[in-house]
Amino acid sequence: MLFGEATALSADHTIADTFHGHIQPGWDIVGNANGGYTMAMFARGALLHSGRRDVISVSAHFLAPGVVGPITVVADPIKSGKRFATTRIDLANAERTMLSGTVITGDLDNGSGPDLISATPPDIPAPGNCVRTVSADFFPPPFVDRIEQRIDPSTAMGTTPGPEVRGWMKLLDDEPLDTLALVLASDSLPPTVFNTHLEPSWVPTVQMTIHIRNRPTTEWILLDSHTRVVTGGMFEVDNTIFDEDGTVLAHSRQLQLLGLAH
Amino acid sequence: MLFGEATALSADHTIADTFHGHIQPGWDIVGNANGGYTMAMFARGALLHSGRRDVISVSAHFLAPGVVGPITVVADPIKSGKRFATTRIDLANAERTMLSGTVITGDLDNGSGPDLISATPPDIPAPGNCVRTVSADFFPPPFVDRIEQRIDPSTAMGTTPGPEVRGWMKLLDDEPLDTLALVLASDSLPPTVFNTHLEPSWVPTVQMTIHIRNRPTTEWILLDSHTRVVTGGMFEVDNTIFDEDGTVLAHSRQLQLLGLAH
Repeated sequence: MLFGEATALSADHTIADTFHGHIQPGWDIVGNANGGYTMAMFARGALLHSGRRDVISVSAHFLAPGVVGPITVVADPIKSGKRFATTRIDLANAERTMLSGTVITGDLDNGSGPDLISATPPDIPAPGNCVRTVSADFFPPPFVDRIEQRIDPSTAMGTTPGPEVRGWMKLLDDEPLDTLALVLASDSLPPTVFNTHLEPSWVPTVQMTIHIRNRPTTEWILLDSHTRVVTGGMFEVDNTIFDEDGTVLAHSRQLQLLGLAH
Repeated sequence: MLFGEATALSADHTIADTFHGHIQPGWDIVGNANGGYTMAMFARGALLHSGRRDVISVSAHFLAPGVVGPITVVADPIKSGKRFATTRIDLANAERTMLSGTVITGDLDNGSGPDLISATPPDIPAPGNCVRTVSADFFPPPFVDRIEQRIDPSTAMGTTPGPEVRGWMKLLDDEPLDTLALVLASDSLPPTVFNTHLEPSWVPTVQMTIHIRNRPTTEWILLDSHTRVVTGGMFEVDNTIFDEDGTVLAHSRQLQLLGLAH
């Protein structure tokens, strides 16, 4: 099942502002749905509710693990302006709310102004010379088989160069990339802290904010993630997404808990 | 009026989860309250409602300019866990909601784990050798007289070295810094894009997320802000706050609109 289908939502015919979806099997990490996957469904609720084309910004709080099964996405419109719609979103199953936060939607073609850009893509090998991630018994998780992910060999797991991971991503079967795919991509790389001596076990996301600056236009997208501060049992991951030509598509930051194996 | 008093809230005696405050005169930028100031009041609502000590994370959407006068802060508790409380907050006056978002509160002493830190403070002159910001007719705005701000001469306005600004901050009368002061500080520097050839006029914040990693312990705090992508009429500002000893206290990112003078 491709990304678009796996994150599909249908409007409830009787309850306003409510959509139904299904957290599909196979998008998980040790049984819990990947955060980017559930955030994409979360953001889709805002797109459908607002009728806008692009996701501009997502801020989401992760309240409970995403478990396979039916979910509802409830949209609470906060503001509908000329340029942006701002929508509060809750994604829940029958037991509990998994994600709560706010999504800005709009049309990336509507903005104009001068460019002044200093962000540069990392210099990594072409996708064909990177390491394709495939799932194994425990790690990498099943989720990685739902996308095509190629990791820069110099940041491949186990090389412990420091808390950074870089790589390429596209969707299976060349499914076109859109701003929802960037939401997925923002949380698709292996956690940076696995590339350290810290021996983390589980690293649940607490909060994540994504800003989308351009629509993807190339076959692959390039992800560049790093962590600068691990302290007090928490760490942040900054991730920048580039097109193949170096255009910045999105940047995100997530705050995660550091659960240790020992 | 000092920061603590200017952001004070009192609980409504009859309406649950509701606090009253006042956007004070003098904390403005051309008539609109500074975003960090209103965000501090916004975050105080979550602290008071949750009974927790520290602000851990703030994500706020700016929906309307902050205008001087009475406001209400309404708290909607989303989750109250052992480590964190997550609270949805709306800050509004009688006419409209100015800020809407979610705040995580907790106690920074409760987390533990190994440190792995690569963030380093910028090398800037001591506060006494930086440029003290004082308000003028149009710019700098009145807000800067409500704090003590000393800008690194190499990033002072008009030097146009690129979209970055660095400087020191403390509160007036040596009022102690706490995590709410870090919320204020996160949006206290002059906008990065004023240090470019772009000739911006107004630069309203759309969304801002702050993560607080440590409590401030020194007299001054050091702010390091930069912008990497101006495009489509928008830009982001990343700001990192350090203690005098180089400890990372907070990092934030805000997405702003770029209004041009011409």
